[in-house]
Amino acid sequence: MFDFSVKKDKSKKLYIKVFEEIREAIEDGRLKKDDRLPAIRTAAKRLEVNTSTIVKAYDLLEREGYLYKIVGSGSYVGEVKTAKVSSEEKEAMEELWDIKPEDKDKINFAGASPSSDLFPVEDFRRAINTVLDREGGEAFSYEDARGYEPLREKMVEILKRDGIEAVSENIQIVSGSQQAIDIAGRMLIKPGDKVIVEEPTYPGAISSFKRAGAHIISVPVEKDGMNLKKLRYILEKEKGIKFIYTIINFQNPTGIFWSEKKKLKLLELVERYRVRVVEDDCMSEIYYSPKKPKSLKAYDRNNQVIYIKSFSKILMPGLRFAFMLLPQELAESAAKIKYMADISSSGLTQRAFHEYLECGNIDVHLKKIRRIFKRRYRYMKKLLGENERIRIYYPTYGGLFFWLALPEWMDGEKFSRKAYEKGLLLFSGNRFFQKGSSNPFVRVSFANATEEEIEAGVRILNETLEEY
Amino acid sequence: MFDFSVKKDKSKKLYIKVFEEIREAIEDGRLKKDDRLPAIRTAAKRLEVNTSTIVKAYDLLEREGYLYKIVGSGSYVGEVKTAKVSSEEKEAMEELWDIKPEDKDKINFAGASPSSDLFPVEDFRRAINTVLDREGGEAFSYEDARGYEPLREKMVEILKRDGIEAVSENIQIVSGSQQAIDIAGRMLIKPGDKVIVEEPTYPGAISSFKRAGAHIISVPVEKDGMNLKKLRYILEKEKGIKFIYTIINFQNPTGIFWSEKKKLKLLELVERYRVRVVEDDCMSEIYYSPKKPKSLKAYDRNNQVIYIKSFSKILMPGLRFAFMLLPQELAESAAKIKYMADISSSGLTQRAFHEYLECGNIDVHLKKIRRIFKRRYRYMKKLLGENERIRIYYPTYGGLFFWLALPEWMDGEKFSRKAYEKGLLLFSGNRFFQKGSSNPFVRVSFANATEEEIEAGVRILNETLEEY
Repeated sequence: MFDFSVKKDKSKKLYIKVFEEIREAIEDGRLKKDDRLPAIRTAAKRLEVNTSTIVKAYDLLEREGYLYKIVGSGSYVGEVKTAKVSSEEKEAMEELWDIKPEDKDKINFAGASPSSDLFPVEDFRRAINTVLDREGGEAFSYEDARGYEPLREKMVEILKRDGIEAVSENIQIVSGSQQAIDIAGRMLIKPGDKVIVEEPTYPGAISSFKRAGAHIISVPVEKDGMNLKKLRYILEKEKGIKFIYTIINFQNPTGIFWSEKKKLKLLELVERYRVRVVEDDCMSEIYYSPKKPKSLKAYDRNNQVIYIKSFSKILMPGLRFAFMLLPQELAESAAKIKYMADISSSGLTQRAFHEYLECGNIDVHLKKIRRIFKRRYRYMKKLLGENERIRIYYPTYGGLFFWLALPEWMDGEKFSRKAYEKGLLLFSGNRFFQKGSSNPFVRVSFANATEEEIEAGVRILNETLEEY
Repeated sequence: MFDFSVKKDKSKKLYIKVFEEIREAIEDGRLKKDDRLPAIRTAAKRLEVNTSTIVKAYDLLEREGYLYKIVGSGSYVGEVKTAKVSSEEKEAMEELWDIKPEDKDKINFAGASPSSDLFPVEDFRRAINTVLDREGGEAFSYEDARGYEPLREKMVEILKRDGIEAVSENIQIVSGSQQAIDIAGRMLIKPGDKVIVEEPTYPGAISSFKRAGAHIISVPVEKDGMNLKKLRYILEKEKGIKFIYTIINFQNPTGIFWSEKKKLKLLELVERYRVRVVEDDCMSEIYYSPKKPKSLKAYDRNNQVIYIKSFSKILMPGLRFAFMLLPQELAESAAKIKYMADISSSGLTQRAFHEYLECGNIDVHLKKIRRIFKRRYRYMKKLLGENERIRIYYPTYGGLFFWLALPEWMDGEKFSRKAYEKGLLLFSGNRFFQKGSSNPFVRVSFANATEEEIEAGVRILNETLEEY
């Protein structure tokens, strides 16, 4: 019955370990509904623990709904729950958690945010102090749930430069783009609704949409955007589709950007089939060609696009700053969900960011990071190009990653683990797919690596390939 | 059919107004499922707008699922949706939104956070600058989803002083107590589960629990805690109760605190019936008797209490800082939901708060605000006591509010509106009840009022009573 043992180290309390082992057995089907669990004494003997440990573990399992008790008979497996954290959520978490303190010495091709030496810390310090001088305690009061009004006005200006007309009442300030995605999901999805995503895509979005009760439908990414034939087929066939989630420019993880033709076609399709688009724009600012690529929102005449712009990749992720531009009929709902989620984002951060933008430093900063990233981009591309067993799967000219296809018989997951042992952090492809089956992809990022580190990292990549 | 007209001011686009009017008619039952809507031209004529306005409004209604179209026949009312923002959420929002910029000159008995002149701004500025000097860009990197480890260690120390033993791995740092409540709800509630709350209670909690799919059961508050007979009856009778949400000390809005006897009894009950408690501790620090009241968590031997401690009422709400102490088996789930909600709270804020605590300023600050609030408390109590038509419904000796019973035939809601016209902001009782029926209660707070303002405010209260 119990095909496991329990390690007696001190990492967790013993009854928690027993609890987790049994829970896992229930969740993966080794123990089935109405199976009878061993009696307390039998179990204690089998696992070589005290009976009180088993009592506590069974109690917890019962409280969590995994077991039910029949007096005088024993404990039985209950209805298996589905509201547990899904494996996709786990993967989303790992995206950051993989970079543990002990990994700080490793070469980091995993992180997708600029390294901290690129942050405009001094400019921000000045902005914070200016705000505190001028506003004192006011800066620490509750802020409007929609965000600090002057900052929302500022966002309207920024949008205008990108060819997007907006009014500040439709702008919702949030604590980073993950929050924007989560709010969009909570606002639009009822349990049983459907959401279309690109495949591969950012797993944090999938987590939120699933949590909100959505069924996820994936459409493959091609070099110039989604496969629109498949998309149209799904839109035609499926009922209850609420929105399409997409990263139009320098997509995560593939790096592709949509052609203008496909952007227009997408808008045509969503108009015909009356679904919305949630556009996650975290990367447009990081372009290496002379012209900045346009967002989908810039073409959106019928207000079908909910637009999310993040500053985590271009300024500092720790700011926790992003905003949403909403169709007018959704602006109030979004503010209500923001309020329910955490009342409002930090007023000090918002005011300091406003002050920072007022001083006009951001253009200088953007030019600087584009220059640095472009150099790294070219250098990594060149080095990767020297190994013919690696293929940069999609050509792109912006963003912070390369999506690499290893030889087809390789498994990206195993490859990443081998590279990790050699001192290189990178992400295997399957965390970006909904069904995590084996595939030969890995994502490498140069956001957090200097040129020397890029060189050393690619060297490890090549070695790992040799030995695989 | 259309028993409304549309105002042609510029506050919103015309088609949005038409959309909202029809939506309201559907939601409140004036239009029923499968009712046929007037043809475009007829509707345009009736409302005196262009046909294109009606087309857009109908389109939006269809997209939002309120209408369905039959080609060649017309538009019909669809299944009425239930996932819309409930009235409780609206009320929760209003709690802050009532204080509009144009209300800044009014006397504020509504806000429940300290006024900004009481914030330790200079100490915080120093802490921020120290952190930036020492850590530079590191302070703006992504933080661990569970929170900045040294700050979590600090929270363990703070808990220890309150008689609560904890380890930092079970501490989850969040952006304010509303986020803690929302995370608890998303973590524990599956659609159809039940949650027990005090009545009256904080409406922001009800919003979150309902959004997560909970059915809310209210148990009346008495002067020494919940009515435990009713609680026991409900626990005995109802299946699927996930947790009890409670504010043990200086409850919002009544100000009551639980007796030790009732605290112990509550823990006995939840152990017997195997439900958890979510304890929202936002007020314990604001006591006026010599001894600080104990939290429920301090008595919790079996780890059944999820403990939330907020610093919004005692430091600055704009910090957006609170933490949860979780039973070990829930710590990981909470971190995952935090990650899904917004990845992590601002690293700079967390590090600055840690620095602030390291310098040991918080005790001095707490003494100061307790002294100030105690003076205001006494003064307001004295002035309120002079009008025999007002009754302070519960005796208390801490917190920031009084829960007032007006003469029984009065309606707190109407009373608040009259007081508002005279320049006084306060909250009517019915926003704290689940069913917002008329009642004679109002909540007055002295958190945001100086002694002169307390005097002027109570004068308005008395005048409003006279004229009612």
